[in-house]
Amino acid sequence: MRQVILDLEESKIREVANAGLGRSDVLAFWFGEGDEATPDFIRQAAIASLQQGETFYSHNLGLPELRAALALHLTRLHGTVAPDRLAVTSGGVNALMIAMQALLEAGDEVAIVTPVWPNLTAQPRILGARLKPVPLKPVAGAWTLDLEALLAAVTPATKLLVLNAPSNPTGWTLTRAEQERILDHCRQTGTWILADEVYSQLYYEEDRANGCAPSFLDIASSEDRLMVVGSFSKAFLMTGWRLGWLVLPPASTHDVGKLIEFNTSCASVFTQRAAVAALQRAREITPRVVAQLKTCRDTLLPLLQAVPGVELAQPAAGMYAFFRLAGYPDAVDTAKRLVREAGLGLAPGEAFAPESAGWLRWCFASKDPQRLVQGVERLRAWLEK
Amino acid sequence: MRQVILDLEESKIREVANAGLGRSDVLAFWFGEGDEATPDFIRQAAIASLQQGETFYSHNLGLPELRAALALHLTRLHGTVAPDRLAVTSGGVNALMIAMQALLEAGDEVAIVTPVWPNLTAQPRILGARLKPVPLKPVAGAWTLDLEALLAAVTPATKLLVLNAPSNPTGWTLTRAEQERILDHCRQTGTWILADEVYSQLYYEEDRANGCAPSFLDIASSEDRLMVVGSFSKAFLMTGWRLGWLVLPPASTHDVGKLIEFNTSCASVFTQRAAVAALQRAREITPRVVAQLKTCRDTLLPLLQAVPGVELAQPAAGMYAFFRLAGYPDAVDTAKRLVREAGLGLAPGEAFAPESAGWLRWCFASKDPQRLVQGVERLRAWLEK
Repeated sequence: MRQVILDLEESKIREVANAGLGRSDVLAFWFGEGDEATPDFIRQAAIASLQQGETFYSHNLGLPELRAALALHLTRLHGTVAPDRLAVTSGGVNALMIAMQALLEAGDEVAIVTPVWPNLTAQPRILGARLKPVPLKPVAGAWTLDLEALLAAVTPATKLLVLNAPSNPTGWTLTRAEQERILDHCRQTGTWILADEVYSQLYYEEDRANGCAPSFLDIASSEDRLMVVGSFSKAFLMTGWRLGWLVLPPASTHDVGKLIEFNTSCASVFTQRAAVAALQRAREITPRVVAQLKTCRDTLLPLLQAVPGVELAQPAAGMYAFFRLAGYPDAVDTAKRLVREAGLGLAPGEAFAPESAGWLRWCFASKDPQRLVQGVERLRAWLEK
Repeated sequence: MRQVILDLEESKIREVANAGLGRSDVLAFWFGEGDEATPDFIRQAAIASLQQGETFYSHNLGLPELRAALALHLTRLHGTVAPDRLAVTSGGVNALMIAMQALLEAGDEVAIVTPVWPNLTAQPRILGARLKPVPLKPVAGAWTLDLEALLAAVTPATKLLVLNAPSNPTGWTLTRAEQERILDHCRQTGTWILADEVYSQLYYEEDRANGCAPSFLDIASSEDRLMVVGSFSKAFLMTGWRLGWLVLPPASTHDVGKLIEFNTSCASVFTQRAAVAALQRAREITPRVVAQLKTCRDTLLPLLQAVPGVELAQPAAGMYAFFRLAGYPDAVDTAKRLVREAGLGLAPGEAFAPESAGWLRWCFASKDPQRLVQGVERLRAWLEK
């Protein structure tokens, strides 16, 4: 086994979750999904496909019907995205891994804004690339980008810039002006942008007609060195289906299809049929999901902000409250104690970057906001002990 | 896009298949699957899971129930295989990619016996490793290993030896004695063995009590530097489900779980429920699948051998007839012409190695052996024109 694989940290989120194994009374908010199953009509589309016997190999790039439906969906949100720019993948994480395989040689430099979902820093390491983290800084609880520092970090020696905005865990969201500066800069340095935009539709501001956070798809040309990752997981309540996509320059799609062949070959047809059904009713499902998440956010945030010692800013996007507790600098320890002593499951900031040590991530996706109220009560009671 | 990715050849099988696009009358034998859908009771297990709302993230290494069922299954076939040696993956190809990510750094030397399924040579190249092919040689149509040449090729500088036996496309199968020599040699050189044994149960000889081709699992200790890949695709008629597994040294399982997190995170729960159902009735399904394949082989082989100019040996395992036609040295051209002019879909040997240029692969898996008879008639008629 390679040393770099041995050195990859086990998820500190899983480490905390393991501390709660066998406890049925834990209010678990540690993983990036809620407690609501996929809508029934989406499951029925997969069931119909299975009943029809659609159990054979399929296209590397995805069913033509799905790519067409996805192109329509993305065009509605971001302006024209043609089907020949789309590759269907076995989850958003798989889309990211394939994009990195397409772009990264051993030794390549990868700039990345942190704190960030740990998979995004693990993947370049697996491929032998070198990370150049650009940390956000907390300002009154809000993790904030120093744009000039980011632009200075991205040089002609930087093969790839990885951006997860809206961000897991911080909720940090790029502005349109920042995206324009970044795109312009990367055009000059010849740096590829890999934009993980899986939270793009979970946006709570009212300032944009399409309802999404600003996306590089809104401003880039199809020929830019840009790959954008999306997923059915969050906006369609389909985490366990493992279905995502890449938006690519059209000249890259064929070669990405080869990489899909060599990674998972294709997504299951019945899973893709479910995704087609989801897209057909996207204008019904996603607004409902987002409204529910907004209710959850607006339930949790004021309660959490009112807890003594909590430092927390309201996220404009995503599904996480990211906060710190005065006097509790080791969040892995804090999170383990919260599981054991309070039955409250949160993710420790150490999972995302060194600079977010001591912070805690609370996934507020739930069909029952009352669970969030109970969670805050448990936190308060535990702190008062 | 990296040059190595651009240089990867598109599947020549797909290139031939594209020549038949839009033709509904082609008898297609080019891909490695038959025309029989997954047994209904397996599909029903997935449907029940979907109806119960099992649509959430799951364990990186697979459901404990599936790992336990798989351990029982493999123990019955090969002697004790404990669940802590098993990782469930998103297909056999994904198991291979993850194993290679675990073992290969850029620049590492990978010995591989060819001709072979092209994914096995593409994966090391994607990871920057160097290939050292060890070609089989055709002897009266049977592709045959020079064991001494293989052992000489594997030195202490060889990080990994990749073996696909029973082989796609040749049907070549390792003997027990050869496996013992190879294992002993690799113990001395410190070389890992990656054994792609997805065709292991499709074995037509009557010389082994467990019904399988000889497997490295029969002879290796759990601590050997050995990873064995299996799949639900072939022996359970589950190609489109994308579910496979790795058998690992127990000390490697945890680290492989991290790699699964960073590649696809997990397989869908409903897909895994289907696999549990399949394993529960393995002793019913797989013998039926193998008997049907044997009927297909025994239908096709004598007819094909009787075609003038055909050089062909009977495979002891797998699902392919691999043959050459005197006077037709370019199999890509021959296969494209066969599609267009005869409505017969075969895979060209150029897809598998330079040394099998001019050979043709015929996947004989079919629920209706009469299709094979028709295929040979089309071949004969085309040759006689």
